[in-house]
Amino acid sequence: MAGRLPLRGLPFLKGHGTQNDFVLLPDFQGALALTPDAVRRLCDRRQGLGADGVLRVVPAALDADAESDDGWFMDHHNADGTTAEMCGNGIRVFARYLVAAGLEQPGALRVVTRAGVKDLEVEPGDGDVTVDMGPAEVGDVLEVDGDKAQFVSMGNPHAVLPVPSVDALGELRPDRLDLNVEYVEDVSDTHIRMRVHERGVGETRSCGTGACAAVVATSLRTGAPRGTPFDVDVPGGRLVITWQADGRVSMRGPAVLLAEGVLDPAVLT
Amino acid sequence: MAGRLPLRGLPFLKGHGTQNDFVLLPDFQGALALTPDAVRRLCDRRQGLGADGVLRVVPAALDADAESDDGWFMDHHNADGTTAEMCGNGIRVFARYLVAAGLEQPGALRVVTRAGVKDLEVEPGDGDVTVDMGPAEVGDVLEVDGDKAQFVSMGNPHAVLPVPSVDALGELRPDRLDLNVEYVEDVSDTHIRMRVHERGVGETRSCGTGACAAVVATSLRTGAPRGTPFDVDVPGGRLVITWQADGRVSMRGPAVLLAEGVLDPAVLT
Repeated sequence: MAGRLPLRGLPFLKGHGTQNDFVLLPDFQGALALTPDAVRRLCDRRQGLGADGVLRVVPAALDADAESDDGWFMDHHNADGTTAEMCGNGIRVFARYLVAAGLEQPGALRVVTRAGVKDLEVEPGDGDVTVDMGPAEVGDVLEVDGDKAQFVSMGNPHAVLPVPSVDALGELRPDRLDLNVEYVEDVSDTHIRMRVHERGVGETRSCGTGACAAVVATSLRTGAPRGTPFDVDVPGGRLVITWQADGRVSMRGPAVLLAEGVLDPAVLT
Repeated sequence: MAGRLPLRGLPFLKGHGTQNDFVLLPDFQGALALTPDAVRRLCDRRQGLGADGVLRVVPAALDADAESDDGWFMDHHNADGTTAEMCGNGIRVFARYLVAAGLEQPGALRVVTRAGVKDLEVEPGDGDVTVDMGPAEVGDVLEVDGDKAQFVSMGNPHAVLPVPSVDALGELRPDRLDLNVEYVEDVSDTHIRMRVHERGVGETRSCGTGACAAVVATSLRTGAPRGTPFDVDVPGGRLVITWQADGRVSMRGPAVLLAEGVLDPAVLT
C-alpha cells in the first residue's frame, strides 16, 4: 500500500483475554534474545507498544527453558522484565494465535509453559478457548480485612472473601499483601462477580487463577456440586470456571487478537 | 511470512513525541468514519491499541473540517472521543509519518489542522521536527497555590509557576483546575525542567503548548533575549523552545514511529 513505512522490523501481534493484554512475538527460529530491558521497553504504554506482558512464540525444541520438546513454548515475560510461569489469560491468547495463524488446528491443543505442559481446547473462529488450569489445593480459613477468607492455592496463593457488593468496596486495600485477594459477590447459584487485588501489582482487570480460586471457595461455601460451570464476571469480561470432579479446574474465556504488524527493532536494543 | 494472520484490516501506525503517544490511521480516500466510540475503543490501553489520541491522515481536499484544500489534514481526536484543534507533539509525529512514508520530502512542510495551517521543518531520517506554534499572548500575573504565576495563552490558557525543584513537588494538585499549570525549575540561563498539570487531564508526560508557555514566562522573568533556544526537560523527554523576535514560538523535538501494521476493523464498529 502507498503510504506504508519501509519498516523491516520484528513481526508482532497484540491481543487480550478479559483485558489482560499481551504483545506476541513469533520467533520460529528461536533467534530472538529478549532481555528484561527489551521487555520493559516493549510493554511501556507510551514509548513501546504497551502490554501487561510479552509472549514469545517459539518451537519448544528450540528453547532450553521448555520442559518438553513437543509443540510450542509460551515464553512469557511480565511487563517488569521478570519471567512468568503461567497465565490463564495469556495462554488463551497464545493458543488463539497458533490456530488463527494456521500453525495448529482448532480443537485439542497442548502448549508448553514454564509450569509444565497445558491442555487446551480452542473453538474455531472467534470462539472461546478452554484451558486446564490444574488442581486446586484447598487450605485453611484465614483472616483478611477482619473477615474470614478461604485460602486456595492454584500454584500461587489466593484468599477469597465473600462480600455483599463488589461495587461498594471502593479502592481495594487488603491487609494481606503476600496473597492474591479475591472479593466475591454472589449473583446466583452459578454466577459470581469478582474483583481482585494481585500480589505485587494491585487491582487488575482480570486474574485467571484468581477466578479459579474464587469458584473453588464459593463451591465450598455454598455446596455447589463439582462439575458446575460458574460464570465469573471480572472487570475485564466474563470467564466460565468449572471445578471438576477430579479436583482440576478448567477455565473457558475469550481470546482476542486485535492487530498485527512490524515493530522497529530498535525498541529491543 | 508463515505464522502471520490473515487480518485484512485497517492500516495503522503507532508513534510518540516525548511520550505523548498516537495511533495514526492513513485514510487517503477520506473513507474512514471515525466515531467517538471508535476512537475510545482504539485508544483503550488494554482492549485497543492504546494511545493519548488518534491522528487520521487524510488529504485536506477530502475533508470538510480542513481549513485549506492543500496538502494533508491532521484529523486529531483525543482518547476521550472529542476532537482536538492542535497538538505540538502530535503534529511532529504526523509530519514524521508523511516524510517516512514518502508522501512528503524532508525540509519545509505545511500541515492543515483545525487551528489553521501549521509550518514545520522535518529533519531527514530520525532527526527532530520543528513546528511553528504561533504567537504567545502574555497575560497578567495571577495566583496559583498561593504563589505568583505568569499567565500565557498559546491559544489555550497556561499559568507558569517557578519552583526550586520539580522533583520535590510530589503529586501535582494545583488549586486552579481551569488552567494548564506549569511548574518550572531553572537549570541554567537556557535550560529549564518542567512538570505540567493539564486542564481536565491531570499530570502528563509532556505538553507542547505548556513548554512554549514556560519558556515565554521564564524569559520574561529572567530577561533572556528573544530568539534564545531553551532546552525544556519534561518527564517524557526534551523539547527545544524558542520565543522568536516576532512573538511566535517554535518548538523542536523528537518524533518516533515505533510500529506499523493492520488492525481488526471490528475495533472501529
